[in-house]
Amino acid sequence: MTNPSPWRATVLTLFPEMFPGPLGVSLAGRALASGLWEIEARDIRASATDRHRSVDDTPAGGGPGMVLRADVLAAAIDAAEIGQDPSKARPRLLMSPRGRPLTQARVVELAEGPGPLIVCGRFEGVDQRVIDGRGLEEVSIGDYVLSGGEIAALALIDACVRLLPGVMGKEASGTEESFSDGLLEYPQYTRPQLFEGVPIPAVLTSGDHAKVAAWRRAESEALTAARRPDLWEKAANRRTGQKTPKNKTDG
Amino acid sequence: MTNPSPWRATVLTLFPEMFPGPLGVSLAGRALASGLWEIEARDIRASATDRHRSVDDTPAGGGPGMVLRADVLAAAIDAAEIGQDPSKARPRLLMSPRGRPLTQARVVELAEGPGPLIVCGRFEGVDQRVIDGRGLEEVSIGDYVLSGGEIAALALIDACVRLLPGVMGKEASGTEESFSDGLLEYPQYTRPQLFEGVPIPAVLTSGDHAKVAAWRRAESEALTAARRPDLWEKAANRRTGQKTPKNKTDG
Repeated sequence: MTNPSPWRATVLTLFPEMFPGPLGVSLAGRALASGLWEIEARDIRASATDRHRSVDDTPAGGGPGMVLRADVLAAAIDAAEIGQDPSKARPRLLMSPRGRPLTQARVVELAEGPGPLIVCGRFEGVDQRVIDGRGLEEVSIGDYVLSGGEIAALALIDACVRLLPGVMGKEASGTEESFSDGLLEYPQYTRPQLFEGVPIPAVLTSGDHAKVAAWRRAESEALTAARRPDLWEKAANRRTGQKTPKNKTDG
Repeated sequence: MTNPSPWRATVLTLFPEMFPGPLGVSLAGRALASGLWEIEARDIRASATDRHRSVDDTPAGGGPGMVLRADVLAAAIDAAEIGQDPSKARPRLLMSPRGRPLTQARVVELAEGPGPLIVCGRFEGVDQRVIDGRGLEEVSIGDYVLSGGEIAALALIDACVRLLPGVMGKEASGTEESFSDGLLEYPQYTRPQLFEGVPIPAVLTSGDHAKVAAWRRAESEALTAARRPDLWEKAANRRTGQKTPKNKTDG
């Protein structure tokens, strides 16, 4: 039995051979083989119209590098949308360091939808008129610069796929992990009991579930405060917000 | 002529077949073929010692998922360091959502070094004792959860490789891009002059270089302020810091 309409990522790229790549292996790869999701990599160059099949040109106003043409990319997007059910509009993403930073909350949203169309930029950038004209949502996976959007697309798709129903099974947990409660995850330990003279912290082998939970919470909080003051502040604001008694503002 | 000691990434993973993957294509792939950098993917499972070749076990203290064993991973790291010149210690990274966020500044540092050893986590996490015992620096590529560290490692390596001498050539620019001055990049345009009725902004075709530069700066600032108030605030602090006259604090 296959899912009649599985989650589907459509990727527009100049390097379709990069897909599924690492997504064809391991957790995502098994789910792909089982039909739990689909990936379609489309070559932007197939939409070039001149005899050199050019996809880019020099930046207007000068500067280094090459810019992906609006007309070519628009044609590639339009071709990818042929046959799509217009009532099920899918998000159109452009992987770009100029984008809004990807968050786990946005990943959850994308995993719950039909699956995005993802444009992978290359060169110096993409003509702004196709970003505006086709309503591309610029998404950044982090504050560093990649040679193109392809690996960013792989990261985004991987993050979504592991959340799809049936994908993770017993292998992992989506509920107890970094960001699920705004905190970084507590330290983990497993056998052997002694590693190079260092034992597993005694509380974890005490069998006292309440103590284990309290220790983990404290470790998560301490790690987040030390390593990610930005997340810690947000989490603190949430806690403060939750703890404010309603009658304080009412009266 | 090959570089006698090129930049080299050593990746410890349970899925060595994921490498070089997308890094074998395009800019990074051509540079790899030219010997401008190297990648070595080592299977952590080769360091398992029991007859089932187990690499993981259940978390001490309970909870879902599986934790990568300290002894197995330590043996894999030690095996990877055999024959390494001890005077050229390389950074040891663990790709993890608990890590410090990767920045372009850190990418530049890593690209200038000998190349990192990168551990890719899987399962629920990695035993904390090997993180401490082998001095692993936890690095996060963003605030979302992947199925493993492999795609994160691909992103980090790609970001480094494009900065290596000889890799980018004329194809792109490392100096005029997002984050190089703490701002997002200005919008780009290229031919055709008219796309679906929208012209390239006149200033960009005016030939007035000073006006082009001023327009681009203003667009970068406006975009950064609107989309990334966090970056904008940092950039503003830098500007304020730079503009503070020294004699103000001296007397």
